[in-house]
Amino acid sequence: MQNFELTILGCSSATPTSTRNPTAQLLNIAERFFLIDCGEGTQIQLRKFKLKFQRINAVFISHLHGDHYLGLLGLLSSMHLLGRTADLDLYCPAELEEIINLQFKHSQTYLKFKIIYHQHKYIHNDLIFEDKKVEVRTIVLNHRIPCCGFLFKEKPLLANISKDVILKYQIPLNQILAIKSGADFISLDGNLIPNSSLVNNKQEPRTYAYCSDTCYEERLIEYIKDVDLLYHEATFLNEMSARAKETFHTTALQAGTIALKAHVKKLMIGHYSARYKNLEPLLEEAQSVFKNTVLAVEGESTVV
Amino acid sequence: MQNFELTILGCSSATPTSTRNPTAQLLNIAERFFLIDCGEGTQIQLRKFKLKFQRINAVFISHLHGDHYLGLLGLLSSMHLLGRTADLDLYCPAELEEIINLQFKHSQTYLKFKIIYHQHKYIHNDLIFEDKKVEVRTIVLNHRIPCCGFLFKEKPLLANISKDVILKYQIPLNQILAIKSGADFISLDGNLIPNSSLVNNKQEPRTYAYCSDTCYEERLIEYIKDVDLLYHEATFLNEMSARAKETFHTTALQAGTIALKAHVKKLMIGHYSARYKNLEPLLEEAQSVFKNTVLAVEGESTVV
Repeated sequence: MQNFELTILGCSSATPTSTRNPTAQLLNIAERFFLIDCGEGTQIQLRKFKLKFQRINAVFISHLHGDHYLGLLGLLSSMHLLGRTADLDLYCPAELEEIINLQFKHSQTYLKFKIIYHQHKYIHNDLIFEDKKVEVRTIVLNHRIPCCGFLFKEKPLLANISKDVILKYQIPLNQILAIKSGADFISLDGNLIPNSSLVNNKQEPRTYAYCSDTCYEERLIEYIKDVDLLYHEATFLNEMSARAKETFHTTALQAGTIALKAHVKKLMIGHYSARYKNLEPLLEEAQSVFKNTVLAVEGESTVV
Repeated sequence: MQNFELTILGCSSATPTSTRNPTAQLLNIAERFFLIDCGEGTQIQLRKFKLKFQRINAVFISHLHGDHYLGLLGLLSSMHLLGRTADLDLYCPAELEEIINLQFKHSQTYLKFKIIYHQHKYIHNDLIFEDKKVEVRTIVLNHRIPCCGFLFKEKPLLANISKDVILKYQIPLNQILAIKSGADFISLDGNLIPNSSLVNNKQEPRTYAYCSDTCYEERLIEYIKDVDLLYHEATFLNEMSARAKETFHTTALQAGTIALKAHVKKLMIGHYSARYKNLEPLLEEAQSVFKNTVLAVEGESTVV
């Protein structure tokens, strides 16, 4: 089975604490490395957890609050200083290009690699990345400034078909790829052999939805329905729901409610307010609505 | 004796390592808190070492290479989010104002406190800060882009004069401040009593010179002569002197030479290249020229 693994690099909201860094995540799908948001200190976190940042193929920045992108300039500088020449795709708000260019202009930095900018259009379900193994679509979040979440999805995986099955039904070579992709087969004697009788490890493509930062927003549900893993911000406990609403954030209870209504398989909460030293109450609150909830913990990896 | 204490927050050069952060220092002179440079992660370092960042009165940014200022946006944001209303003086290259304003514009951040910008003029010995206790002057460094070091100096301290001395010479009240400031006294019988016979703890004003980043530059010597503490970058060992020259940096041997020629009392080296895991060879090299050399170590404080 190919890799589909999420590593948390930062899980704090706006103000970092001495133990929690601002938002950043590294997602590995089939050896494509996607950096999702890049708060201050992300390059240091990558080093700390021994994750090679030159392997990052693409960076996805949700929005232009500092705790989601202020680590990017330093990371790009280090990539440059350590000899990167491979292109880097950057999916981000249009304004980030101006911010990056202004700073490299004044530091007189001329990158040895190319940044390919892909500006957010803020359209739901917009296909922004696609290759043989993965596709990425947008989820438009509802925050104080324009903000975009992301839905990462494996391409349908080819199933296995055994030699015995090929011999038994005398399957010609030119039909094997179709069967691995899900086709049925009509045998020489005219019988339809269903795909399920032919392949032995059919696996549904896995999905990961990243939703940070947003207020409680039921319009997201249709875009994250049934995902294997939902990361949803849970900045506050529900006793602070007024503050959450005012700042366009979500409570742990609300994150659990979204997960429940979207029938996701697993919920991970994060983006914790610095006021919570102990995160258990946030976890318990989300679990009171949606049992299969876990906390985002820096340095921990989750296989989706 | 009033405080004069330097705390190292970061001592790495351009690329941070898992154990060393980019440049930042906190200097406390008589409860004035000066932040000198602000590399990525400085706000996290301040928290880690339990230094209250709302007490910072002024920030001094030497130049616009990312490892010297990329932590500033995050620090300003946190100061704002945590309720700062006191003005903050910022001594920096003119272009930093544009960089800060652009980012706060796109994040729709409206600071609750005022940043008072003081643009570098790149003139040697320019008096840029002065109050009752402290003055700060510039040291123009020789780097790849315009770069400014800083000389921090206590104002002359008042000496103590004991009651016994006042009674003995029958010194009138209106002359005591002059004597504390260094004046002699003419006694009732017309004898000149030298100041040294009147006061008992005369103390020379202390000085701290910050020189990072610069190539080996003997023209600095006259501006840092006799300082109590010189921080000088020592990015490389002398075996890499060609690389040092090319990148406008200094070797440990050269830093020691500058310290020797300037007759400073103590040298602290820092801004280490990420290639040096073990810093002892850098220390030994500088000490081979200038004995009283120490390493900059994150979290450690030095009383000047």
